[in-house]
Amino acid sequence: MEKGLLIVLSGPSGSGKGTVRSVLTEMEDFAFSVSATTRAPRAGETDGVDYHFITHESFEEKIRNGEMLEYTTYNGNYYGTEFSEVLAAVESGRNLILEIEVEGAMNVKRIYPEAVLIMLLPPDFAEQERRLRGRGTESEEIIRGRLERTHAEMKYFPRYDYVVYNREIDACAKEILSIVHAEKCAVKRHADAAKRYFE
Amino acid sequence: MEKGLLIVLSGPSGSGKGTVRSVLTEMEDFAFSVSATTRAPRAGETDGVDYHFITHESFEEKIRNGEMLEYTTYNGNYYGTEFSEVLAAVESGRNLILEIEVEGAMNVKRIYPEAVLIMLLPPDFAEQERRLRGRGTESEEIIRGRLERTHAEMKYFPRYDYVVYNREIDACAKEILSIVHAEKCAVKRHADAAKRYFE
Repeated sequence: MEKGLLIVLSGPSGSGKGTVRSVLTEMEDFAFSVSATTRAPRAGETDGVDYHFITHESFEEKIRNGEMLEYTTYNGNYYGTEFSEVLAAVESGRNLILEIEVEGAMNVKRIYPEAVLIMLLPPDFAEQERRLRGRGTESEEIIRGRLERTHAEMKYFPRYDYVVYNREIDACAKEILSIVHAEKCAVKRHADAAKRYFE
Repeated sequence: MEKGLLIVLSGPSGSGKGTVRSVLTEMEDFAFSVSATTRAPRAGETDGVDYHFITHESFEEKIRNGEMLEYTTYNGNYYGTEFSEVLAAVESGRNLILEIEVEGAMNVKRIYPEAVLIMLLPPDFAEQERRLRGRGTESEEIIRGRLERTHAEMKYFPRYDYVVYNREIDACAKEILSIVHAEKCAVKRHADAAKRYFE
């Protein structure tokens, strides 16, 4: 069984990574990773489907044991991605996309070096600013904060494998699919191919 | 001006690299490299279009100076690819495919490390043998020699960047196009992207 790829998609606010990810999953089959959380299940939510609902203690133990690929806190609850969850998907041969920010991406690469890191960018900084302002939903302070944060995020750029500019959603999604297909052909992922060829 | 890619396509006899290359050039625009030769022009052949017709002395001087990316002899004449020819194409922004054997490919990678090396393979060795015999045009001795040579060629496999199995021509050509598109997005080819983003 050939392993699937773990694709990490990062990008500054306004890069459109949510939309790109959703177009990608329409174009091709990708595995879906169920996040873990410490918050209580809401009505209609199923454990193992919507989230893995676990205790605060259990979540913190997983952090200490390095079992969380990435995590964050919101309203006093933890949310994160368990390494075992991701591993199960790729071992089953399916490709999986994680949409996470730069620090989380670095952690994924450290724990799972075969991961493919893609940085999604707006065409340029001026266009990013136009897009953030164009939403018309955020305060000037929040927009300034997001633009400022982009400088910090771009410091991680050289540690990514690929950069894709989001000029147009479909073209951008197709470029990412090309990366997925190309990475499946990488010789480093076919270490035993020469031996197997003659079998 | 973003540089084009130099794609090196190698593969054992029966891998179908000639056909794949011709399908590729129908699917997308690739630059064409004019070879150099020491043989005399035939009627209707134009210097600089069909070949660069150069003298025996000049060809050997280019070999000594490391100006030939790869070369071979046939019927007492030299045939080869000049580095300057390839460089002119990629500097102009166009992608170029060279279809050359493994030793030549190693030489290309040494001279031009940005080159992308793709090994094209039949699905397996048994299928390669079926294809070679299926042609019905070569002697048993020649077929044996070609199959034997594959073992030597595969020793270079780990030094290639990608492996593509030629199960079906169109799917195979599309995989190679994915590699071309993905490599254009490689962060290593966008060293100044972070700086340029904020300009």
